[in-house]
Amino acid sequence: MLQLGIIGAGRIGRVHVQSLRTLDGVRLKALADPFLPEETAAWAKEQGAAQVTKDYRELLADPAIDAVLICSSTDTHAPISLEALAAGKHVFCEKPIDHDLVRIHAVMDAVERTGLCYQVGFNRRFDHNFRAVRQAVAAGEIGTPQLIKITSRDPEPPGPDYIRVSGGLFMDMMIHDFDMVRYLAGCNAAELYAEAAVLVDPAIGEAGDVDTAIVTLKMENGALAVIDNSRRAVYGYDQRCEVFGSAGMAASGNDAPSTLQLSTARGVCAEKPLWFFLERYTQAYADELRSFVSAITARTPAEVTADDGLQSVRMAMAAKRSLLERRPVRLDEIPE
Amino acid sequence: MLQLGIIGAGRIGRVHVQSLRTLDGVRLKALADPFLPEETAAWAKEQGAAQVTKDYRELLADPAIDAVLICSSTDTHAPISLEALAAGKHVFCEKPIDHDLVRIHAVMDAVERTGLCYQVGFNRRFDHNFRAVRQAVAAGEIGTPQLIKITSRDPEPPGPDYIRVSGGLFMDMMIHDFDMVRYLAGCNAAELYAEAAVLVDPAIGEAGDVDTAIVTLKMENGALAVIDNSRRAVYGYDQRCEVFGSAGMAASGNDAPSTLQLSTARGVCAEKPLWFFLERYTQAYADELRSFVSAITARTPAEVTADDGLQSVRMAMAAKRSLLERRPVRLDEIPE
Amino acid sequence: MLQLGIIGAGRIGRVHVQSLRTLDGVRLKALADPFLPEETAAWAKEQGAAQVTKDYRELLADPAIDAVLICSSTDTHAPISLEALAAGKHVFCEKPIDHDLVRIHAVMDAVERTGLCYQVGFNRRFDHNFRAVRQAVAAGEIGTPQLIKITSRDPEPPGPDYIRVSGGLFMDMMIHDFDMVRYLAGCNAAELYAEAAVLVDPAIGEAGDVDTAIVTLKMENGALAVIDNSRRAVYGYDQRCEVFGSAGMAASGNDAPSTLQLSTARGVCAEKPLWFFLERYTQAYADELRSFVSAITARTPAEVTADDGLQSVRMAMAAKRSLLERRPVRLDEIPE
Amino acid sequence: MLQLGIIGAGRIGRVHVQSLRTLDGVRLKALADPFLPEETAAWAKEQGAAQVTKDYRELLADPAIDAVLICSSTDTHAPISLEALAAGKHVFCEKPIDHDLVRIHAVMDAVERTGLCYQVGFNRRFDHNFRAVRQAVAAGEIGTPQLIKITSRDPEPPGPDYIRVSGGLFMDMMIHDFDMVRYLAGCNAAELYAEAAVLVDPAIGEAGDVDTAIVTLKMENGALAVIDNSRRAVYGYDQRCEVFGSAGMAASGNDAPSTLQLSTARGVCAEKPLWFFLERYTQAYADELRSFVSAITARTPAEVTADDGLQSVRMAMAAKRSLLERRPVRLDEIPE
Repeated sequence: MLQLGIIGAGRIGRVHVQSLRTLDGVRLKALADPFLPEETAAWAKEQGAAQVTKDYRELLADPAIDAVLICSSTDTHAPISLEALAAGKHVFCEKPIDHDLVRIHAVMDAVERTGLCYQVGFNRRFDHNFRAVRQAVAAGEIGTPQLIKITSRDPEPPGPDYIRVSGGLFMDMMIHDFDMVRYLAGCNAAELYAEAAVLVDPAIGEAGDVDTAIVTLKMENGALAVIDNSRRAVYGYDQRCEVFGSAGMAASGNDAPSTLQLSTARGVCAEKPLWFFLERYTQAYADELRSFVSAITARTPAEVTADDGLQSVRMAMAAKRSLLERRPVRLDEIPE
Repeated sequence: MLQLGIIGAGRIGRVHVQSLRTLDGVRLKALADPFLPEETAAWAKEQGAAQVTKDYRELLADPAIDAVLICSSTDTHAPISLEALAAGKHVFCEKPIDHDLVRIHAVMDAVERTGLCYQVGFNRRFDHNFRAVRQAVAAGEIGTPQLIKITSRDPEPPGPDYIRVSGGLFMDMMIHDFDMVRYLAGCNAAELYAEAAVLVDPAIGEAGDVDTAIVTLKMENGALAVIDNSRRAVYGYDQRCEVFGSAGMAASGNDAPSTLQLSTARGVCAEKPLWFFLERYTQAYADELRSFVSAITARTPAEVTADDGLQSVRMAMAAKRSLLERRPVRLDEIPE
Repeated sequence: MLQLGIIGAGRIGRVHVQSLRTLDGVRLKALADPFLPEETAAWAKEQGAAQVTKDYRELLADPAIDAVLICSSTDTHAPISLEALAAGKHVFCEKPIDHDLVRIHAVMDAVERTGLCYQVGFNRRFDHNFRAVRQAVAAGEIGTPQLIKITSRDPEPPGPDYIRVSGGLFMDMMIHDFDMVRYLAGCNAAELYAEAAVLVDPAIGEAGDVDTAIVTLKMENGALAVIDNSRRAVYGYDQRCEVFGSAGMAASGNDAPSTLQLSTARGVCAEKPLWFFLERYTQAYADELRSFVSAITARTPAEVTADDGLQSVRMAMAAKRSLLERRPVRLDEIPE
Repeated sequence: MLQLGIIGAGRIGRVHVQSLRTLDGVRLKALADPFLPEETAAWAKEQGAAQVTKDYRELLADPAIDAVLICSSTDTHAPISLEALAAGKHVFCEKPIDHDLVRIHAVMDAVERTGLCYQVGFNRRFDHNFRAVRQAVAAGEIGTPQLIKITSRDPEPPGPDYIRVSGGLFMDMMIHDFDMVRYLAGCNAAELYAEAAVLVDPAIGEAGDVDTAIVTLKMENGALAVIDNSRRAVYGYDQRCEVFGSAGMAASGNDAPSTLQLSTARGVCAEKPLWFFLERYTQAYADELRSFVSAITARTPAEVTADDGLQSVRMAMAAKRSLLERRPVRLDEIPE
């Protein structure tokens, strides 16, 4: 029975606690959160956490704890990762590891040195729809990939305060799609070109960001790809992809609350997609932890590595530069 | 925190144990099973059951236990229900309560006498798809219901041994659809006509049953309905419905493992439906327990009552008689 | 170049004139209609008819005319068929040949005697969707048929005046589905049971008819079948079928004006089905004539024969009797 | 009754002849083709052409002819357009008018001078699916357009000989999509960036062209857009679009031969899309001529103008330059 500690009891930390309840062979031992209001402490106890603390270092010092999930704020991901690895804990770290390549490399070095399991939280790789597409591609069912398309649109934008510290659309939102295009293609990007605009909310522009973007990519295997993002789709979270190749196309659509089809004088209507990531990716969040637990137990490599974390950050950097300089940017222009 | 006991550790009992792990406000206190092999006992402990026994009466005698789930063999449903109610326990009982109307009425009387919560395991009422259709009907979105169609086909037939003790297709399989048509229509059936045949496997005929059936119904609100059943759909569990009315139609289809769409030289193909009831109704099994717990806690009526259990058995009896006598049978020909 | 005459310039006669414009190897020579207002005569000339008359006998007397399409009122179908066959013309006759079995047999005898081509206007057999299902069944793709389901709902009911002379829902509307179930199954029905009601419009009941019906059938090959009809689906003409068998299921849905999918805050909506038979079956109407012309030219049997016309009328009679006598009726109870 | 002449009896000329048979108020008077084999002449007579000639100037000299359809080779489009306009004929000209902007402007000047109707053959604007999307956009159903996506893939590439004289993928194939993105957005493009590769067939690369491309655009109304093209989709002609805006998304998919859905042990499969443009755009080809005839008769502007022809050529030029110079190209860099 693997013993886990969770660092950070925000929205995503709580999602992981829920997921853990459904998994066998693992249990929540402790939870740390610097703020830890009474309500949170009570809730954590109810969820079975034997230990609840404001200081994550208590978890790292507990020899009974095998692994930690780092769900704290982005700026703490790298330093806590380093501490946890140094303490001999396996680490599941929410994305991104960091916005700074040097700090990411420090983590990667520590992972290599310690030989511990380190998994980055690119949950979408575990979504049943994206996974089915990837498996079709990997099985050769569409032949050689030639065109990859990813659509990713949020149901509503975050507030301007969040936008200001988010790192921008490419680092905060499209980073998931940068990882996805690598996952679907099975290789890195060689070059990309970014087009973007403020079409959803002028306040986002005033905060120095864009809210609508299209990025074209050339993958290392020669396939062309395109990602489009919007911060607001009024019909809900829109998460689709298609991989087109020499022998066919594998595509996936959205999940809806039900298969209800309502035919009336106004038309034939289905439900909107599931509202947002918490609804769409419930299964993916559980399965990424299942995979993490299984990798630790079976001593196999993590399914999403620190290098995956690195590459997606480099792609976000290239997209930013492309948008700034109005030209295609090769990935090798971004430091390894 | 509600304390539950489970009686019967077969397939469906284990499903409920899994579901309980995801629910708040309730915990598994004890599990009873007359056979209780070592493996099962160990598993139950692992799932958090403090007490594991071969004798369900120990659960009924435990004052800490608020409610029991009866998941034992069909013939024990009624007697254990009576004992549990007498012991002051709320009861969730798998369907059918019994094949005998007198025994069902004895349970109904006990429920009324004790005022305890008694819920029958018609899980499909909690399926997101059927529920969405029912809600559309109840909200008046399709006007007055006129035609109701239910398709229910299993991916593979049970063995002849099971068939022999099953009570027959109408009592064993279509009973779910009899409950569903009442749920969708919001009323009882007035009359029905059954047509059936042995088309899947002659061994089913030799065991005295049919494997393919169409039943036409007239509901008390005037709507016509039709149910079709097959014991074997090679493409998987086929569970669909439609309710057609004066203002439109609400229909639901199957769930698939993913939204993958594969376009090749052979066509544009989606995945088959989820394989069988354990896959299709995972969410429904959890939600029926959530509803049971909530009814107990909030002291509201059970969402599926003993009367629902009674009516579906009466419909199965009417269908048997219709098939035997080659004529439509009114429900009032079957004893209340 | 085959020369055709059309008898009857009503709605369906005009549909055939339109279809003829798109066909090679055939031309409209003459048109007869007992009323023939000026406007119709002018229109027929414009469509290329060299001869326009009130008297269909002029067409039958014209040796240049190879074949006639009988699109006049139902009661004239049989007598004009006999006259046309006697005059040596190939005949395409709108359904039904007649409501009287003796008169139908007289036509069948004449067809056999003359060896001329005689096709009945069951246009739906030529619809691309139903045909694709039939071809999948005939190709063995679904194995042995076990369950056949046909849904057929009109967008709006005819007026009470029409209802009174229509022969009733089974003879006027479901007759198409009786033919379809034979087409899909590839055999005749052995027995059927009819359930029906007045749910759409009390005026239809006052006119002595029903407007909603479900008919269950047992086909001669052992398959069970069910047909449902409604005189009013507010979302438009609903024409679907499915054939379920030992190796799978072939199903077809409705055609819509476009594949438009509109996702908004209200849902994900497609267009309603094409409004009614003129829209849905445009292609089928052209293809049944193409088939007729081809059968004449190639001296092959008509794809829809007078016997097809006979069997569907017998089924409508059986359905009427079943509804009246509240019991299943064997087809062999209806005179051959 | 409008009298038409057709210049060019190749594949597309013959499509128009077929379409004309279904239209009211217009007839084919004459056909000219420089090669005119016997078989073609006979066919044209059969289709009702009173006059058949090798010299298109005979058509231009015939005062009975109101309008001509120019379906000859691309290099003759502009000169014959000029002659026809000078002869006072309305002109329907297949796309592109020319690859040379000066020659296109000469035609535009002549159109303005003569006041005659001049329509360019961008047939896809008349396709029921694209039109439904455009109408939803124009009706404001999706709010302000923000992202437009067009997928256009051929089922098989043309031979290298054709590729060599085609003007390249952007001028020969994507030109339809350049027109479509203007149609859907309701405005011109401001800037574009082209990415392309040879992934389908090295012979296409050897012929100096690409076979796979993604072009990102910025429209004058601020919307971003992306077009992807492939010369070979093994599952058939893939013609889809979506327009995403502040209030929703309108999307359209492919047409298939039928709505057949085959569920077997291998999955749930639909038919492939209609094979190629002749199958997919049959209705669009007829409707563009209906629109041309109607514009002449009603003296209204053509629905697709010479300026539409000009703009799409300019966009193809910009795409070529972008690909060559590896940078985004503003449309105002291309001469008006």
